[in-house]
Amino acid sequence: MSEQRNNPYASSVSDFLSRVDNFAIIESTLREGEQFANAFFDTAKKIEIAKALDEFGVEYLELTSPAASEQSRDDCIAICKLGLKAKILTHVRCHMDDARMAVDTGVDGLDVVIGTSSFLRKFSHGKDMDYITQQATEVVNYIKSTGLEVRFSSEDSFRSDLVDLLNIYRTVDKLGVNRVGIADTVGCANPRQVYELVRTLRGVVSCDIECHFHNDTGCAIANAYAALEAGATHIDTSVLGIGERNGITPLGGLCARMYVANKDYIMGKYKLEMLRDIENIIAEAVDIQVPFNNYITGYCAFTHKAGIHAKAILNNPSTYEILKPEDFGMTRYVSIGHRLTGWNAVKNRVQQLGLDLSDDQVKHVTAQIKLLADIRPQSLENVDTLLRQFHEKARHPNSDGFPQLVETK
Amino acid sequence: MSEQRNNPYASSVSDFLSRVDNFAIIESTLREGEQFANAFFDTAKKIEIAKALDEFGVEYLELTSPAASEQSRDDCIAICKLGLKAKILTHVRCHMDDARMAVDTGVDGLDVVIGTSSFLRKFSHGKDMDYITQQATEVVNYIKSTGLEVRFSSEDSFRSDLVDLLNIYRTVDKLGVNRVGIADTVGCANPRQVYELVRTLRGVVSCDIECHFHNDTGCAIANAYAALEAGATHIDTSVLGIGERNGITPLGGLCARMYVANKDYIMGKYKLEMLRDIENIIAEAVDIQVPFNNYITGYCAFTHKAGIHAKAILNNPSTYEILKPEDFGMTRYVSIGHRLTGWNAVKNRVQQLGLDLSDDQVKHVTAQIKLLADIRPQSLENVDTLLRQFHEKARHPNSDGFPQLVETK
Repeated sequence: MSEQRNNPYASSVSDFLSRVDNFAIIESTLREGEQFANAFFDTAKKIEIAKALDEFGVEYLELTSPAASEQSRDDCIAICKLGLKAKILTHVRCHMDDARMAVDTGVDGLDVVIGTSSFLRKFSHGKDMDYITQQATEVVNYIKSTGLEVRFSSEDSFRSDLVDLLNIYRTVDKLGVNRVGIADTVGCANPRQVYELVRTLRGVVSCDIECHFHNDTGCAIANAYAALEAGATHIDTSVLGIGERNGITPLGGLCARMYVANKDYIMGKYKLEMLRDIENIIAEAVDIQVPFNNYITGYCAFTHKAGIHAKAILNNPSTYEILKPEDFGMTRYVSIGHRLTGWNAVKNRVQQLGLDLSDDQVKHVTAQIKLLADIRPQSLENVDTLLRQFHEKARHPNSDGFPQLVETK
Repeated sequence: MSEQRNNPYASSVSDFLSRVDNFAIIESTLREGEQFANAFFDTAKKIEIAKALDEFGVEYLELTSPAASEQSRDDCIAICKLGLKAKILTHVRCHMDDARMAVDTGVDGLDVVIGTSSFLRKFSHGKDMDYITQQATEVVNYIKSTGLEVRFSSEDSFRSDLVDLLNIYRTVDKLGVNRVGIADTVGCANPRQVYELVRTLRGVVSCDIECHFHNDTGCAIANAYAALEAGATHIDTSVLGIGERNGITPLGGLCARMYVANKDYIMGKYKLEMLRDIENIIAEAVDIQVPFNNYITGYCAFTHKAGIHAKAILNNPSTYEILKPEDFGMTRYVSIGHRLTGWNAVKNRVQQLGLDLSDDQVKHVTAQIKLLADIRPQSLENVDTLLRQFHEKARHPNSDGFPQLVETK
């Protein structure tokens, strides 16, 4: 925890509301992820994904409603039969028909959803809050009677009337739901709103609180973190964040965020070194490239370039890295063949190559690398060749005591 | 503002601290972006990028230090001579030599930086706070004497000692700097920390406050927003977020976030329809793909798939879209040839094709599309053919009154 002590903003007193080191992931690649434009998972692929996520350690897997199609129902049944450690949930509309069909698949629980915002009530299902309450009561009571877990979620929670929301959540909490859910269906929420709403809700219900955040305005990870700070207990994710539009909180990005909050907790419960392989399975299945800037596994996540950074990184990686690449099965790369390079990074490479140059000589060859790289970036092979040539010539110096490899202006 | 009234969390009373509708962008693609692993911009490309960002409407362009290399200096001079509307800044270490060289290039201002965290003081430059204060005073006084703008920033601000930070900021504020800068150099900060630090600083200095956020843990956009809520005045961005490691607050993502906060303000100052072209220039220059899930311009940002979503979107786009695609020169796409499709989306397509089917007939053909798509996703061409065949056969129905196109189990 020495890193935390050096951060004046890490909580130095106990925060009884925060759940940043006590939460569960509801992994929704097989539900929200199936709503991604490119996604079509056949049965074998769904089973492969479910097994990989189970091995990674997520607490829950959420599947597409069996009411969506015959194959969706068959796949749901097949995944329930795998005997995974993760609990299996399916996501259904707040209808008795859908709930009955879901109960029959063998899932551990049902995630029930209904739209509560004025937008959805007007333009989607057209129902008023009395009707929603009545519908919720019937469906929740039925699921409870089967002994399965039940979550009741509103949709578009951040554009719903606060009093309506709190009323319906309190009602279902008294009915005995396991969780209530908040969903930023349109991706409009920001972290301070999330903190306020979750904290308010935390004072109204005694059950668990699940949160689902879309990423349209870039806050899906930060909102998940703010929700946990305010007492939320469950976060929805998908691999690479795939989902409707540009998706939801990504599993890998959430791990990066939570690792910084409490590394031991996250490393204790999830096999972080599996992230890259799991992301590759999904990327291939839905025919996308892992983004260049993806959290942890993006190819430049652990690449350091500026001279000032490279020097410090070589002295102590914590200076510019809060994520240890080796904890994720990744490696660090310090780039040196460019115009922003610095002599400390070059010196490190000289030592790696087993060459013997003084600091002044390293500074001299660094200036020559910068000169070449000002015209065109130099590959590591080119830089190595240059360093070896310089080292060779250093044994037969010119009159300045320095070998000259590049014509200077 | 009708959307905001429907959001119980939009500020209904005046917030005198918030600057979400009164801030400036410091666009750092030509500085932070040059520290991206793949980046090498030649002079022509730098000029093309500078002109495009200027036309887009960013208030400042930040360039690599002229001390980095000879070409960096020449390029800085060339861009200053373009006569752009945007002010030109360059980013320099807190050294007199670097400052003098920068002043001579013709820039409008200098962004001065020094590491203040215990990590950087120990492993990077090895200087103590007294030395940093003395150095800052000399450099700031010199820049002030030239009449140029000056910003003084700490580095790794969120792992710096709070009292040290406030001391140095107050000192440079009294010297008359235009801005102080906070930098989350390692990407460890979260929005509530950011809000606290910026709000505290807002009470200590009278100058402007600039913020720079790395995205290692997925909070760069949310942190920028929290900073503005707390009174920050300037946000650093780069196109597609390119920078050290996985980068910083992306220009497009910040625009998405701020558009939701105050659409009129953002549309009034920036040409949002240029975003896609500007991102394509950068993506090509640094040889990356625009991420599939990129804000606004990612190919699925405005694609809707689930039946329940598609229905509502067709009734009123605001139900599931808080960003209007047409404001960004983009278009909406409702996907229908998949197992999650719904009859309302299919009905919409039937109407687009000018076919005449009853609601019951549309429900029937939707079931057939779902059946086919359960085996393999159907292209829009396939769906259209199916609809046309169905319509044709509907004029010669079977005994049920429904044409049958697919063999059901």
